[in-house]
Amino acid sequence: MKGTVLYGPGDIRFEEVSEPKIEKPTDAIIRIAATCVCGSDLWPYRGIQGGSGPTRMGHEYCGYVEEVGSAVNSVKRGQFVVGSFATSDNTCPTCGIGYQSGCVQREFISQAQSPYLRVPNAAGTLVTTREAPDASMVASLLATSDVFGTGWYAADAAAVKPGVTAVVVGDGAVGLLATLSARQMGAEQIIVMSRHPARQKLARHFGANDIVAERGEEGIEKVLEMTRGFGADCVLECVGTDEAMGQAMRLTRRGGHMSFVGVPHGVEIQGQSLFFSQIHLEGGPAPVRRYLPDLIDLVLNQKIDPSPVFDLVLPLSEVAEGYKAMDERRAIKTLLQP
Amino acid sequence: MKGTVLYGPGDIRFEEVSEPKIEKPTDAIIRIAATCVCGSDLWPYRGIQGGSGPTRMGHEYCGYVEEVGSAVNSVKRGQFVVGSFATSDNTCPTCGIGYQSGCVQREFISQAQSPYLRVPNAAGTLVTTREAPDASMVASLLATSDVFGTGWYAADAAAVKPGVTAVVVGDGAVGLLATLSARQMGAEQIIVMSRHPARQKLARHFGANDIVAERGEEGIEKVLEMTRGFGADCVLECVGTDEAMGQAMRLTRRGGHMSFVGVPHGVEIQGQSLFFSQIHLEGGPAPVRRYLPDLIDLVLNQKIDPSPVFDLVLPLSEVAEGYKAMDERRAIKTLLQP
Repeated sequence: MKGTVLYGPGDIRFEEVSEPKIEKPTDAIIRIAATCVCGSDLWPYRGIQGGSGPTRMGHEYCGYVEEVGSAVNSVKRGQFVVGSFATSDNTCPTCGIGYQSGCVQREFISQAQSPYLRVPNAAGTLVTTREAPDASMVASLLATSDVFGTGWYAADAAAVKPGVTAVVVGDGAVGLLATLSARQMGAEQIIVMSRHPARQKLARHFGANDIVAERGEEGIEKVLEMTRGFGADCVLECVGTDEAMGQAMRLTRRGGHMSFVGVPHGVEIQGQSLFFSQIHLEGGPAPVRRYLPDLIDLVLNQKIDPSPVFDLVLPLSEVAEGYKAMDERRAIKTLLQP
Repeated sequence: MKGTVLYGPGDIRFEEVSEPKIEKPTDAIIRIAATCVCGSDLWPYRGIQGGSGPTRMGHEYCGYVEEVGSAVNSVKRGQFVVGSFATSDNTCPTCGIGYQSGCVQREFISQAQSPYLRVPNAAGTLVTTREAPDASMVASLLATSDVFGTGWYAADAAAVKPGVTAVVVGDGAVGLLATLSARQMGAEQIIVMSRHPARQKLARHFGANDIVAERGEEGIEKVLEMTRGFGADCVLECVGTDEAMGQAMRLTRRGGHMSFVGVPHGVEIQGQSLFFSQIHLEGGPAPVRRYLPDLIDLVLNQKIDPSPVFDLVLPLSEVAEGYKAMDERRAIKTLLQP
């Protein structure tokens, strides 16, 4: 089969790769219904995060079970499934408290931009739908696999609840779905920091009350003004740069909650700044598996629709253009169809 | 009157200072019943935290109201009061969510090692006892002003509750009272990291089940072994150094809670380490005012006795020896009597 391989900065190729096989009795093989390009894929694509040699790409997926290992009883051939980018046995003590993305048996998915995918820890990772979904639902179900699950975690980890004021730092796909999540959780006021008209529009569609287009000090001042000078109850950092983290810390009110859900790159937090900011801080790879059953229900019951985050749909064979469009910010997020 | 002044590293003097006066209508003047030396006083005493010129010292206090400003109606002359090291109006939005140590009108107390003290924001800061306490209660009441309140916050911010495993990093007075607090909140297992026999003994008296005397990597391995390799649910960092913070982060299980309650000195947290540790983090100057009414009740009803943390009692005039004994670790904490 052909799959996606990153050779170096800007060099994505769709080329012949080996087909996945069951390697352990706990594995499953999935025929991909849809996959996509993640904001975090852009770090190595841009050469910011070093790679050594050609690397298979992709970690967001949903599709049909093709084959299961001998130890997998919870899913069977033909079922439609969604799984997290972080596989989990869902039975270890870390899974037991809802942090499946830190499972002792965790393996990160990394070859999902392909027609077939091996999923380790299949029983603890894959969540089935009652029946095969309508084609119109596939994009939303795919979103739950990472980008929506991560946005949801951003809102949950920042303790969003009815009545709060929330600020979303970052207008990428995760930030936009963090906005949708905060709205669903009942935030009263949602301020999204964004300077791109198309993203601002989508942020408003997802529930933002206010958009702040200013950046840096000017942006901070604007948000502080809008929050009586105190900062927000909940700040959702959805970028991962030092600037965004610093900004988010300054926008969180004393006693408030800040989450950070993108892998930090070059971020150093000064202990004394954090101490005197008096905030609650929680971040990490989103424990998507904790949320998957609920998010799948919300999607299938049409209570929530994350799919507009995919503003570019391409055949998998054109994956290189999918990366390029996101890198150049022509697309928010690219969905790929095998 | 005479009061305590730090002139430079190791140079504490008890010398003539000006008597405090009401400066604002919201002030009160307190006649100190007892004060003490804080672990944080040792930072400038050791020259680690620079001072510029002679500095009045002390921020833990309890005593009798001597005089109040015209705007203070909640306390009156002759009443016994305890206040936090961080004064607060107790009415601003930050106070409203229980983070009084971040009050918009906050002023830090800094002249308490004296016979008289001016307390700004008196109405929102001072908590009265129903009657003048017995002399035997003064040490415990003094403790609530900072060291016990801060230990309590360490346990609260680390989400200690019945059944959890807690690790206390640091065997100073705050760490020891964090141990007492975790016990009171129902922790099932409390592991205290300490290599000083007298402090180990007091830690056990306050409720520690286990003591780990090893330091660094060895100490970390020992605690991980005792927590099934996962780390603890709750880790209470009560030191403030980079080493202690790093150690505490590694001892907190994924999904667990870590608090830090001492002003960090030279602490830098790597964003990526924090991200993949998947912990909840909360720290800052303890919002003692939030806890004061309950802690005073616990003390006066003899439900809890923090006073053994004071293992050296001196007349205020011998304050220099009080600092020296703590610096040389001959004393855990020095109580000073005017």
